[in-house]
Amino acid sequence: MRVLGIDPGSIITGFGVVEEVQGTLHALAWGAVRAGAKQPLLGRLKRIYDGLSEALQAWNPDVVAVERVFFAENPKTALVLGHARGVALLTVANAALPLVEYTASEIKQAVVGYGRADKAQMQQMVRALLRLETIPQPADAADALAAAICHLHTYGVRGKAVE
Amino acid sequence: MRVLGIDPGSIITGFGVVEEVQGTLHALAWGAVRAGAKQPLLGRLKRIYDGLSEALQAWNPDVVAVERVFFAENPKTALVLGHARGVALLTVANAALPLVEYTASEIKQAVVGYGRADKAQMQQMVRALLRLETIPQPADAADALAAAICHLHTYGVRGKAVE
Repeated sequence: MRVLGIDPGSIITGFGVVEEVQGTLHALAWGAVRAGAKQPLLGRLKRIYDGLSEALQAWNPDVVAVERVFFAENPKTALVLGHARGVALLTVANAALPLVEYTASEIKQAVVGYGRADKAQMQQMVRALLRLETIPQPADAADALAAAICHLHTYGVRGKAVE
Repeated sequence: MRVLGIDPGSIITGFGVVEEVQGTLHALAWGAVRAGAKQPLLGRLKRIYDGLSEALQAWNPDVVAVERVFFAENPKTALVLGHARGVALLTVANAALPLVEYTASEIKQAVVGYGRADKAQMQQMVRALLRLETIPQPADAADALAAAICHLHTYGVRGKAVE
């Protein structure tokens, strides 16, 4: 099974592709779509759409995993994140792929074994589980890989398909 | 000049097309994309994308007008609205059309002549300005027509191009 994780953001959207073969995880690719903080909003949304559509086509995953978002710091932050996340989810819909969502604590639990682990601990575990020499960069890509690992570790148990 | 207004929403997204010919406004079309409250999020986003893309292609406007959103009631509302609005704006970017944004009070000022007018007053003025027998339905379509009228009334003055 091949899972593409996405960590949507209005400036940087991370992605990472993890495949499980006979119980072993392999990182096939990771990276980020840099929408550019100074770009107009329309151009940023188009970059996210084009970049993620390309990644989905290139890596042809069985399923896409994304962190479920409940809150944001404030309504303005939530609105901006929502724009980027909506476009990211649209690429999944247009590729006719299933989407699974996990909460931040479910991802930490699945990757680190502890739902309140901090980001640094989680990124170290992503590195270790994927047998990489360094933590994948940027951090958004590591977070996307974590979402993908979470799905492979908990497949069919905690993942709630939203489509 | 032909303007297509959009009123994005996660359940109903209104649109309306207004053309100005020698100082007279004409309503060419209005309607709504009903994403369905009970549909999964991915399916709703895809319906918004497909429906608006179709309207943009069918009506081929010179510019798209949308209400600028600063706040939402709370972060959760803002996040959900943001998903729909992001997808709506992406259709504009993918159609390579310019987008203009106006605040709610700018739209009321331009349509009613009073920035604190209520929704009912604004919808009555939309009906009157477009010489329609009844208020366009659903309300989301009337709001979208109002955004389009606002741009035609204030073109080049208050509209802030975001792309």
